[in-house]
Amino acid sequence: MRVADVGEFGLIERVTSRLTYGPATLLGPGDDAAVIAAPDARVAASTDVLVEGRHFRRDWGSARDIGHRAAAANLADIAAMGGTPTALLVALCMPPELEQSWAEELADGLAAEAATVGASVVGGDMSSSPTLTIAVTALGDLGGRPPVTRSGARPGDVLALAGRTGYAAAGLTVLSRGFRTPRLLVEAYRRPEVPYAAGPQAAGLGATSMIDVSDGLVADLGHVARASGVAIDVRRDAFEVPPQMRDAAQALGADPYAWMLGGGEDHALAATFPPGVDLPPPWRPIGLVAAGSGVTVDGKPYTGSAGWDHFR
Amino acid sequence: MRVADVGEFGLIERVTSRLTYGPATLLGPGDDAAVIAAPDARVAASTDVLVEGRHFRRDWGSARDIGHRAAAANLADIAAMGGTPTALLVALCMPPELEQSWAEELADGLAAEAATVGASVVGGDMSSSPTLTIAVTALGDLGGRPPVTRSGARPGDVLALAGRTGYAAAGLTVLSRGFRTPRLLVEAYRRPEVPYAAGPQAAGLGATSMIDVSDGLVADLGHVARASGVAIDVRRDAFEVPPQMRDAAQALGADPYAWMLGGGEDHALAATFPPGVDLPPPWRPIGLVAAGSGVTVDGKPYTGSAGWDHFR
Repeated sequence: MRVADVGEFGLIERVTSRLTYGPATLLGPGDDAAVIAAPDARVAASTDVLVEGRHFRRDWGSARDIGHRAAAANLADIAAMGGTPTALLVALCMPPELEQSWAEELADGLAAEAATVGASVVGGDMSSSPTLTIAVTALGDLGGRPPVTRSGARPGDVLALAGRTGYAAAGLTVLSRGFRTPRLLVEAYRRPEVPYAAGPQAAGLGATSMIDVSDGLVADLGHVARASGVAIDVRRDAFEVPPQMRDAAQALGADPYAWMLGGGEDHALAATFPPGVDLPPPWRPIGLVAAGSGVTVDGKPYTGSAGWDHFR
Repeated sequence: MRVADVGEFGLIERVTSRLTYGPATLLGPGDDAAVIAAPDARVAASTDVLVEGRHFRRDWGSARDIGHRAAAANLADIAAMGGTPTALLVALCMPPELEQSWAEELADGLAAEAATVGASVVGGDMSSSPTLTIAVTALGDLGGRPPVTRSGARPGDVLALAGRTGYAAAGLTVLSRGFRTPRLLVEAYRRPEVPYAAGPQAAGLGATSMIDVSDGLVADLGHVARASGVAIDVRRDAFEVPPQMRDAAQALGADPYAWMLGGGEDHALAATFPPGVDLPPPWRPIGLVAAGSGVTVDGKPYTGSAGWDHFR
């Protein structure tokens, strides 16, 4: 059955009937607005949009996968402020001929990814559109701590990473060349494994800055360097290329470090910490902050792809 | 200059440099997430999406008008819960050939409408897309009161309306027939005049249910009747057709009551109040709640258009 056959209200009913709600959901879908708990009298909020053909392809992953990815991109933004996500709102624009099961499975993926951090899909909107588009807003709680911004890094700080980089970019390259393996990389692209808990953990450890690595590590550290007015140097030997990635890079004529340093969408968290902080897992040191500007790799300007501009 | 020439980050910088922030904005755009005050430890949140060709046409209003409309649709949802809006987040998908000034003026319109209630545009996302799409999420504060839902109407309650209905629908009909006047109607479509303050006012007066009239009065009262398990009767003589609407209806062969009872997007607020409540302006009684189900007009089933399904 196509979404046009079910209709807007029918589809909303089908989708919301599949959802469950965590304790932060004081009022769920079905009214003019949802109501979500904001225990410390502040709410962190972030919006990301995914456009078919630009951010995802329906033949590169299931609707459920795409739901996981769309949710992860937003939940990671909350984690990168040191917050714990509480809720997602989803605007879904669909071609009328789309199968309604696709929309239901997308919602399942969004809800399942949100549930991994105790958050819920609490509202949204649907419309027909020639272009399949998923706009997600994530809300989160900062647990009484100041938000960890991009602008607090100081010379002498340690740069640390939680989570993986390059896996999703490698998986995307594999898929775009028409392959479906290695599974490790393809699955990393389809459902990023985001170290959500590392966000509040870093805030508790006194992180001076933090960012969600979504555009590529060097590009995103560039945002931190600019906002903080510092230079950041990344140690290349802090990155270990897994065998599957090494083999895939060789087969495809790619540089695995271009994936690791330039590829986005694994949603690792990068943070800076005052010198001397004892970093528990999953945090691992990967570089240093110094006076100056810009991002270097092993002290040299990075010459690989610096990330992704969504208009170019 | 086209948005493709400015690029994603350039355009974000241009747009955010034009924004100003109200006191609820604890951290504005430029980081992974914004941080907004939620004074009573809850946040009301609602998302609406506008798709070009479906919800707006660029030749029927300026970018600024469309910004006002997109913001109004979302801010009205917060008001309809009895809340006061605090923030908007905007996901904007644009064809690469769009003039960047269009995006800037859209943001101006969004921000200006938000400012009328003290709210700010605090974040968002941009992407290229073949389809111009604006997804807006509004956040708001409930001022310590319970949210006014759609489900609390009780037999014997008085049905009341704040704001206008039918003006925007009439303006849309006028525009769709190729006319640009009467100005009253066309402007009502381009920039709805939403009685935002009537939302918290109704909550304070003890409203038992409330809804933002966006799909059409009868259709939206249908949502209230279903959610509350009651019947609602609307008095047709509670609606006065202004001369410009009467003349336009005559010229176009339209029924002005079909606009007033079936047309949406003026974002009037409809609420039910316990019998005997003294209703101050802008609230005016327009009907009654009774035991039963469904919505009637002067006791009879309504035979006009019942609203808008975005897939049909």
